[in-house]
Amino acid sequence: MNSFGVIFRVTIFGESHGRSIGVVIDGCPPGIPVGPEDFKPDLVRRKSGRKGTTKRQEPDLPEILSGIYKGFTNGAPLAIITTNKDKISSDYDEFVDIPRPGHADFVAKTKYSGFADLRGSGHFSGRITWGLVVAGVIAKKISKDAVIAAKLISAGGSTDIERAINKAVKENDSIGGIIECRVKNPPKAIGEPFFYSFESAVSHLVFSVPAIKGIEFGSGFAAAAMKGSVHNDPFIDKNGKTSTNNAGGINGGITNGNEIIFRVAVKPTSSTGVEQTTFNFATKKMQTLTVKGRHDTCIALRMPVIIEAVTAIAMADLMLIDRGIYFHH
Amino acid sequence: MNSFGVIFRVTIFGESHGRSIGVVIDGCPPGIPVGPEDFKPDLVRRKSGRKGTTKRQEPDLPEILSGIYKGFTNGAPLAIITTNKDKISSDYDEFVDIPRPGHADFVAKTKYSGFADLRGSGHFSGRITWGLVVAGVIAKKISKDAVIAAKLISAGGSTDIERAINKAVKENDSIGGIIECRVKNPPKAIGEPFFYSFESAVSHLVFSVPAIKGIEFGSGFAAAAMKGSVHNDPFIDKNGKTSTNNAGGINGGITNGNEIIFRVAVKPTSSTGVEQTTFNFATKKMQTLTVKGRHDTCIALRMPVIIEAVTAIAMADLMLIDRGIYFHH
Amino acid sequence: MNSFGVIFRVTIFGESHGRSIGVVIDGCPPGIPVGPEDFKPDLVRRKSGRKGTTKRQEPDLPEILSGIYKGFTNGAPLAIITTNKDKISSDYDEFVDIPRPGHADFVAKTKYSGFADLRGSGHFSGRITWGLVVAGVIAKKISKDAVIAAKLISAGGSTDIERAINKAVKENDSIGGIIECRVKNPPKAIGEPFFYSFESAVSHLVFSVPAIKGIEFGSGFAAAAMKGSVHNDPFIDKNGKTSTNNAGGINGGITNGNEIIFRVAVKPTSSTGVEQTTFNFATKKMQTLTVKGRHDTCIALRMPVIIEAVTAIAMADLMLIDRGIYFHH
Amino acid sequence: MNSFGVIFRVTIFGESHGRSIGVVIDGCPPGIPVGPEDFKPDLVRRKSGRKGTTKRQEPDLPEILSGIYKGFTNGAPLAIITTNKDKISSDYDEFVDIPRPGHADFVAKTKYSGFADLRGSGHFSGRITWGLVVAGVIAKKISKDAVIAAKLISAGGSTDIERAINKAVKENDSIGGIIECRVKNPPKAIGEPFFYSFESAVSHLVFSVPAIKGIEFGSGFAAAAMKGSVHNDPFIDKNGKTSTNNAGGINGGITNGNEIIFRVAVKPTSSTGVEQTTFNFATKKMQTLTVKGRHDTCIALRMPVIIEAVTAIAMADLMLIDRGIYFHH
Repeated sequence: MNSFGVIFRVTIFGESHGRSIGVVIDGCPPGIPVGPEDFKPDLVRRKSGRKGTTKRQEPDLPEILSGIYKGFTNGAPLAIITTNKDKISSDYDEFVDIPRPGHADFVAKTKYSGFADLRGSGHFSGRITWGLVVAGVIAKKISKDAVIAAKLISAGGSTDIERAINKAVKENDSIGGIIECRVKNPPKAIGEPFFYSFESAVSHLVFSVPAIKGIEFGSGFAAAAMKGSVHNDPFIDKNGKTSTNNAGGINGGITNGNEIIFRVAVKPTSSTGVEQTTFNFATKKMQTLTVKGRHDTCIALRMPVIIEAVTAIAMADLMLIDRGIYFHH
Repeated sequence: MNSFGVIFRVTIFGESHGRSIGVVIDGCPPGIPVGPEDFKPDLVRRKSGRKGTTKRQEPDLPEILSGIYKGFTNGAPLAIITTNKDKISSDYDEFVDIPRPGHADFVAKTKYSGFADLRGSGHFSGRITWGLVVAGVIAKKISKDAVIAAKLISAGGSTDIERAINKAVKENDSIGGIIECRVKNPPKAIGEPFFYSFESAVSHLVFSVPAIKGIEFGSGFAAAAMKGSVHNDPFIDKNGKTSTNNAGGINGGITNGNEIIFRVAVKPTSSTGVEQTTFNFATKKMQTLTVKGRHDTCIALRMPVIIEAVTAIAMADLMLIDRGIYFHH
Repeated sequence: MNSFGVIFRVTIFGESHGRSIGVVIDGCPPGIPVGPEDFKPDLVRRKSGRKGTTKRQEPDLPEILSGIYKGFTNGAPLAIITTNKDKISSDYDEFVDIPRPGHADFVAKTKYSGFADLRGSGHFSGRITWGLVVAGVIAKKISKDAVIAAKLISAGGSTDIERAINKAVKENDSIGGIIECRVKNPPKAIGEPFFYSFESAVSHLVFSVPAIKGIEFGSGFAAAAMKGSVHNDPFIDKNGKTSTNNAGGINGGITNGNEIIFRVAVKPTSSTGVEQTTFNFATKKMQTLTVKGRHDTCIALRMPVIIEAVTAIAMADLMLIDRGIYFHH
Repeated sequence: MNSFGVIFRVTIFGESHGRSIGVVIDGCPPGIPVGPEDFKPDLVRRKSGRKGTTKRQEPDLPEILSGIYKGFTNGAPLAIITTNKDKISSDYDEFVDIPRPGHADFVAKTKYSGFADLRGSGHFSGRITWGLVVAGVIAKKISKDAVIAAKLISAGGSTDIERAINKAVKENDSIGGIIECRVKNPPKAIGEPFFYSFESAVSHLVFSVPAIKGIEFGSGFAAAAMKGSVHNDPFIDKNGKTSTNNAGGINGGITNGNEIIFRVAVKPTSSTGVEQTTFNFATKKMQTLTVKGRHDTCIALRMPVIIEAVTAIAMADLMLIDRGIYFHH
């Protein structure tokens, strides 16, 4: 199930230590200008290199295999790949018998009957999100009037994010974070009842991204403690502008034209330098495990651009689906 | 987009004040015993009648049109409907010009160019979840070893739910709530990377249900404030049991066999008896609006069974998809 | 797998002798005028009653459960059913042990482990095509500039169709036929490479209809014996009109604006009054079988309207998919 | 719409003269042995080089980017590409204004608003079927007990195929052909009513392949001229073997265990060396056109392996879908 989308359809492939990873982007309208340099800004935002991110260094250069002709999308699917360069696969041998707590090692082994590639977490690696960011660049061109911006608003429970990360690095531990995504000037009236609401599309994609544990739209969990008379957003003009925005820009699963707002919770990276005591499935005994490898202290640092990408993908698909366009717009 | 599921596929139809509402359940294995009485317990849990729920009384009796033969599923799709009886449609006329804050009136009118049926919120009504509960009854029979139980754990910000509801009724206002869903003995190793993770499937369905504003799995938003060394769940036996369960039973989007735990945030019902000031799109002026009609004070009261239903639907679909079964299990 | 279509999505349900049969039509643009009487002309064309058709008489009246409001589609799915009235189910008991040659009895029993409803062929019955015709009526309104016309051009190998049917009735046997479908003024440039070509969409639907054994577009099988210099259709004007039409209006899986032409082969009804010798799976011996029941001598007589319906369904879906619309039309 | 399949899902990409072409194969069970050499026999059968095929020579070597680990499928999607080497793109410039009769030039230009890559027919090229053959190799491993064999049974209307091709080469023209595909020992009881019958799945895929104009199963178009008493296939043993096989191994859209038989009609290659008179869309005048480039005299020569591939893909998907397996097999 490595594809998502109804019309604008993204297919992802690759393993962390395999030959290449990539993405196929289907259903893209023809005539959209795309150059190799267009991917750079978002790919740079996803890269490691800052404090708190892994030492693995990948050039991440996109190779466009198809779908672009003379600088424009040509109506055929785009296939874009990048080659994995900086792999140290020996780090992963022991995790077959001692699956890392919090990782996919155990479920991958179970589900795929021992055939899964566990090196660098294989197909479960955050590395696979490279293709999402690439697809997001295209998707942003489709919903080009919208301004999508996600940022990390807390890490390890603190809004002083730099300090929280420094502390975690010093403790050789990892920390989680919360990302907020806002879309100004979103396309109005997208989202398809009953089963492809705007929130359904976005949350479906968001929970495909490794390490996400929660999502809330508008006032979110806080809404559960509110009264209706306070939570409701009164309309104040003929465009449907509302005076408050507890709905996060969505009513009945459909965008109402106000700013879209949602937040996602990112768990701390499962790989932590702290020694853990866990089960060895070969010896059938508990034992200590120290995960070496190279890992992100706070994977949430690299995620805002990924959250933007999946938001753009959801919006592009919903825009292309909206059949009201066909007859009435 | 009124269908969901890859193999076990649910299609929903109907409007709140239309002739009938219903559901088609496709992809159900043959040979599952189903009688009309099987739907009763879950449908009763969804019904109004308790304090804090609407005065609209619907018999909600399921009419099975197809898919059952001699008391068993026959391999063909089940179509099950119920007739809307207790409709008072005159209540809704003014909402064309004065869309109710927090409701789908505005977006429905915009998206469907004025052709939407707004009576009782039409296809956006919580009434449409009747079909989800019916499909959930079938889905629970497919994942029959699992024990799914959802309950309201807070309302209006308080764990004393009865008191919170009494207060809201007295104030003629509405309140939200938080529902927790747990699945004991879940099927192990279901969930499909990259785009149909267990969380993606569940959240997609959950956000199809009207009034949901957030979802979190396991430690959820609290995970964002935790260290990896604390959040990770160490394995403690050969079945993959973990000593803690911050993951909520899911790693890498795949169930690990431990209890599945997630929570959803339900906003306060948009219909509240409190007077609101909002925009009149005909007069182009702000005005007061008092929503009459019959409404739930706390729609979250009726939702645990709906959350169970969508969980069962997601699990049934993921079980039937799992191709590992075919070759190795 | 009882649904078809990407945006305009048709879901079919029911068994020949069940309570009701029906169809859910999703993805229909809002604002299309639909009245109950609109279904009559096409449903009448599908009905039995003429010489050569079954004596089973069904009123076939459509009950619209949802999706229409004040005479127009409202953006929500249409659910339309009809009740089975004229059932004689005792005719079918013996076919469990002695599956009728040419029928689905054997495969249904095998696939559904004995739980299938074989009465009147259950979900495999031609009766289920009622829902296709109903969906076709809506689909024709979407592709309203196109004129779709299918007719029976031969029966039992003869173009004197009446005579062929009279002969078959007298022999108490059944006969097949060939239906030709033409679409004048079709929507131009619909069809989606690589896997949803116009022919793929139409043939997929056509082969869902019971009793179809072949389909050919344009010159079809005759093309295999032609030279390229003869088969190619030269363009003769700026609209893309061609002087010949061996392509049947389709190049590269996409409509070129010329008349669409295809033919389908319908086998003789499997139920024939002639005695057959076949295997009894209970006694494990060969024996004679005379199929009673009420059956069509030439099921192809009732099929032109069904072929039109599936053509319209395919066209409607492809029109709503075409993303070129979004940016450039 | 460059993906096909529900569980076993094939996504195709690339243009004839682009950087690379390829395929993503998703939903493949883990643990299937796959080596690079496994693709060779089928890819060789698809290659040019024989008399009657194009002079374009492509090494066609598959590069496996993902999905294989230690010689086995690992549960993640396979991505396999090959690089286009032998391109002469200057041949195609004039076809923008003078679309070649029988080709996709005209529809591609119309549908994609002038942005399509027409070089070598771009995404419409038969070259794109390389990915189908690669996917077919994997699919054949899933349905490994079945023996799928397709062959060219006539060309240019003659069963003396060599002679027909020699004649066409001499005339500098192209010819069509008929391919018959048979599956011995097919999986029994696959095919999903109502909309994913065995014939629907196969025909959908077959009509994705360029140049196909018709398909018939079993007795096919000849059935239209037969009586039911002759066409019906009596059962003769407890496994469901039938004495005749007019059904081509399929009843009610489901395989009955007998040999599957179908034939497809392939039109003559649109590119022919014979001079044609057609419309120039720039000058708005008719003119002569001689298509140079390098082309197949009889593209049907290279197609049997493609027809086998799509048959295997359809079978693999239907096998993995069959939910009867889950509960009863």
